[in-house]
Amino acid sequence: MTTSKQLKTIGLLGGGVIGGGWAARFVLNGYDVKIYDVDPQAQRKIGEVMANARRAYAKLTLAPLPKEGTITFVDTPEAAVTDVDFVQESAPERVELKQELLARASRVAPADVVFGSSTSGILPSQLQRDMTFPERLVVGHPFNPVYLLPLVEICGGDKTTVAARERARDVYELIGMRPLMLKKEIDGFVADRLMEAMWREALWLINDGIATAEEIDDAIRFGAGLRWSFMGTFMVYRIAGGEAGMRHFMAQFGPTLKWPWTKFMNVPELDDVLLEKIVSQSDAQAGTRTIRELEVLRDDCLVAVMQGLKQVGFGAGETLSAYEKKLFSGATAAPTKIEAPIEVQRRRITADWADYNGHTNDSRYMQLSSEALDVFFRSIGFSNDYLATGRSFFTLESHVRYISESRVGDEIVVTAQVISLDAKKVHLHSVMAQTDGTIVASGEHIYLHVDTKLKKACPIGSELLVLLEPIAKAHAKLPKPDGVGRFVGQSIK
Amino acid sequence: MTTSKQLKTIGLLGGGVIGGGWAARFVLNGYDVKIYDVDPQAQRKIGEVMANARRAYAKLTLAPLPKEGTITFVDTPEAAVTDVDFVQESAPERVELKQELLARASRVAPADVVFGSSTSGILPSQLQRDMTFPERLVVGHPFNPVYLLPLVEICGGDKTTVAARERARDVYELIGMRPLMLKKEIDGFVADRLMEAMWREALWLINDGIATAEEIDDAIRFGAGLRWSFMGTFMVYRIAGGEAGMRHFMAQFGPTLKWPWTKFMNVPELDDVLLEKIVSQSDAQAGTRTIRELEVLRDDCLVAVMQGLKQVGFGAGETLSAYEKKLFSGATAAPTKIEAPIEVQRRRITADWADYNGHTNDSRYMQLSSEALDVFFRSIGFSNDYLATGRSFFTLESHVRYISESRVGDEIVVTAQVISLDAKKVHLHSVMAQTDGTIVASGEHIYLHVDTKLKKACPIGSELLVLLEPIAKAHAKLPKPDGVGRFVGQSIK
Repeated sequence: MTTSKQLKTIGLLGGGVIGGGWAARFVLNGYDVKIYDVDPQAQRKIGEVMANARRAYAKLTLAPLPKEGTITFVDTPEAAVTDVDFVQESAPERVELKQELLARASRVAPADVVFGSSTSGILPSQLQRDMTFPERLVVGHPFNPVYLLPLVEICGGDKTTVAARERARDVYELIGMRPLMLKKEIDGFVADRLMEAMWREALWLINDGIATAEEIDDAIRFGAGLRWSFMGTFMVYRIAGGEAGMRHFMAQFGPTLKWPWTKFMNVPELDDVLLEKIVSQSDAQAGTRTIRELEVLRDDCLVAVMQGLKQVGFGAGETLSAYEKKLFSGATAAPTKIEAPIEVQRRRITADWADYNGHTNDSRYMQLSSEALDVFFRSIGFSNDYLATGRSFFTLESHVRYISESRVGDEIVVTAQVISLDAKKVHLHSVMAQTDGTIVASGEHIYLHVDTKLKKACPIGSELLVLLEPIAKAHAKLPKPDGVGRFVGQSIK
Repeated sequence: MTTSKQLKTIGLLGGGVIGGGWAARFVLNGYDVKIYDVDPQAQRKIGEVMANARRAYAKLTLAPLPKEGTITFVDTPEAAVTDVDFVQESAPERVELKQELLARASRVAPADVVFGSSTSGILPSQLQRDMTFPERLVVGHPFNPVYLLPLVEICGGDKTTVAARERARDVYELIGMRPLMLKKEIDGFVADRLMEAMWREALWLINDGIATAEEIDDAIRFGAGLRWSFMGTFMVYRIAGGEAGMRHFMAQFGPTLKWPWTKFMNVPELDDVLLEKIVSQSDAQAGTRTIRELEVLRDDCLVAVMQGLKQVGFGAGETLSAYEKKLFSGATAAPTKIEAPIEVQRRRITADWADYNGHTNDSRYMQLSSEALDVFFRSIGFSNDYLATGRSFFTLESHVRYISESRVGDEIVVTAQVISLDAKKVHLHSVMAQTDGTIVASGEHIYLHVDTKLKKACPIGSELLVLLEPIAKAHAKLPKPDGVGRFVGQSIK
C-alpha cells in the first residue's frame, strides 16, 4: 500500500447522487470506473449525472482534460472491486447495510486496495468492523455535487493505517479535490456537524412558524453564505473584530453565547483556556496577513463571487444586476466638452486580466475599448429605451494596437474620438492611456446601425444624431490619430 | 411617513465596523451622512472603510455611480439626527446602551424619520421601549461588509408600524440591498440564529480538540460554503434528494436528526405536520423548476463562483488553479495534421458573453481568438518552462472581423493558420466558426518574440521552431484567408 501505486480503475459501491458524482469526477479525469448499484435505474441516472458533469467541466476550465475513462456496470459488489486500484463506497446511510457491503467487497479486493466511504457521519471504526484487512478503510466524505465541490474529509478508524489515509489523500488530489485530514474520529466529522447544527436550528424556525424554507435560505445566500464560499466563520469574525482582531470580537460577542440567539443552548464555557485556544488558532490561521489585508482579500473575493453569480443571473448576482440596471438608467450624462477626444471611462486593471507575463492580457484591451465605447454610446442617448424600438449598433470590424505595457492595479483612462459618421455607420477610435498620459493601446471600430427585426442596416435615429453630429463635426477638425487605417502586418514606424 | 419621502441625508449613530460600512454604502450611492461616534479614532477608521469600499466598488461595477455624498462628523446623537431623512443605529450590542441612545436621539428627530437598528439579535420591542414615537423603530440588520453584502433583515417590534417597515425596505433597496422582511420578532432573528447554531458547534469542536479554527473554516469554504453563496440548505437538500426531491431527502436523513451528529440535540419532532410543512414550503420555493434544472443552475453558479475565486487566487479558486496547472502541464499535444489550418479549440459561448442584442459581445471574439492561439502556442512547446528561460511572445497588433452572429450556448471551433514567420515574429490568423462551418469571426495577430529581461526582441527559440517551421512551410501553400491585411474602414466586399 504505497502512495505511488498506480491509479487506473476505481470500484464504486453505490451509484446514487453521490456515487454518480464520484463516477463523473473519476471518469472526467481519465480513470475507468466499475459501478455496482441495486437500482435498476442506476445506468440512466448516472448517464444524467455524467451529462451534467460534462456540461459543467466544459465551462469550468479551458485546460485540456484527459481522455474520458470508461464506465462499466456490474451485478455484484465483488465484481466492482475486482481488478481495481481504489474503492469508493456510497451506499445509503444505514450502518448495517454499509458494514455488510464493505465486508463482502473486502473479501475479494487485494489487501493493498484502499476503501473510501462516502458516509456523512458514521464512524469509520464501525464501518471497518467486519472487513477483511480493515486497516485500509477510511472515510472519504465528499459534498454534492461531487464532481465540482473540492472538499473531501478524510478520517480513519481505530484500525486505519496512516498509509491508507495517505493513499486516499493522493487519490482524491489526483482528481482535483481538497482533502481535509481529520485528526480524530467523531460522529458527523467536522463539516456535517456544522451543517447539522444549522439545519436543526432551521427546522425549529419552520416548526415554530418564524420563517419559511425560502426565507431561511435567503437569510443565508444573500449574506453569510457569500462569505462562506471563501472564508469560514473564524476568519470572518476575526475581520469583524476590526483592528483588534479575534480577541476583541470574542470580548464583544462572547456574552451573547449565553443569550437565546438559537435553540442550541448547550454551549462550552468560554473560559480563558478556550479563549486562548481560539485566539491563538485564529492568529495561526491568519499568518502574517493584517486585518486590512484580510479585508481587501475578503472584498476581492466577494466582488468576484457576486460578479460570477451575475453571469448566471441568480441569488446575489440577480441583486447586483438589478442594482446596475438602476445605475445605468438615466445616469449617463451627455458629453459636454466635445472639441477634443472625449474621456469616457477610467478603469483599473484587475488580477484576472493579467497574462503569464504579468501584463494585461492582449484581448483585454479590446474589451476595455469596446466597453468604454459602450459608455460613449450611452452618453449620446443609446439606451435600453432606444434598443426597445428595434434599433441597435452592430460592430463590423475592430483593430487594436498594443503600444506599451500596463499591469494589475494601473488605472486606465479611455478617450473616444469620432473618425467619421454617415447615415448608417460610425467609425470610432479609442485611446487607452495611463493617468500620466502614457498611451498603452488604441482601438478602432466600425459600427453599423441596424433594424434588429429586419436584420438590415437603417439610418441612425435622430434622437442620437442630435448629440452625435456635433461631436463628429468637432472631431473632424482634429488630426487623425496614429494608426487609424493600419492593417496587421503593416511595417511599424 | 410615506414611502415616497425623499432621501438625501442619513444620520448614523455609531461608526465602528458596521456603522462605517453603512456610511460607505450610503455615501457611494450619493447620500450624505452625519456620524456620531464616541471613538476619537472614528474619523480615521471610517476613512479606511471608505478606502476599502471605493476600491471594491471600482471593481464591482462598471455602471456609473452617482457623485459621492458627504460625510460630516458630529459630537452628539442629537446633531446626528437633525435634518436627516433616515437614521441607522450601529452601537455596541448592549441593550441599555442602545435603548438610551435611541431614546435620546428620538426626542429630537421628527416623527416621520424612521430609525433602523443594526443589532444582531436584540428584540426591536426592547429597543423601542423608551423612544419618542417608538412606532418608527425597525431592526435593519446588515452583514459585514455592509457596503458589499446585499442582505438586510427587517424586523418590527410590538409597536412598529407597517409604514416604518416599508420605509426601511425602500431606503435599503435604494442602496442596492436585498431586504428580508421577517414576520415575527425573535432573538437573533433568522440569519444570526442559523449562524449562531453553527458557531456554537464550532466552539465545541475547538473545545474538544477535534479540529482547529483553520480546519473548521476549511470544512466550510471548500464545501458547503460554496453552495451557500447562492442556495440555502433547503434548496441544496432538495437537489440532494435527487429525482424524488425533498420528501425523499427527508425520508433518508430524517432519522439522523436523532443521531449525535452535533451537540445540538434538542431537535423538533419530525412528525407528519412538520414534514408536510417542509415539503410544501420547499415545493413553493422551487416553483416550476425541476430537479434537473436546479442541478444545472447549481452547477452554473458553482462554476461561476469558483472561477471568480480563481481570479483572486484564494480558497476554492486556488484549488482550481492548481488543478488547471496540472492539466496544462505536458497535456498539450503537438499538432499532427498541419497541411490545413489547425483546429486549436472548441468552446461554448457562456451567458456572461452576451451583449444587449443577445449576441456574443464583440470584444469576446478577440478573447476567443487570443486564448485559442495561446493553446496553439502551447502546442508548439511554448510552456511555463520556456517562459522561465526569460523569453516570451508579446502581441503587437490585432484585428477582428465580425462576420455572422453567435449566441449563448453555441459551440465555436477555432482554427489557426500561420500567415508568416520570421526569426523574431509570427503572424497568425484565426477563424472562429460554428460546428456546421459557418464563420462567425476571424482574427489576425502579430506576435513579437522578446527577451523579457532586456525588454527587446530576440530570435524565437529553436525548441519552438522545430515544430513551428514545418507548420509555417505547410501553411505557406494555403491561400491567404479573406481579410488578411484589411484595415478598419476599408470598403466591404
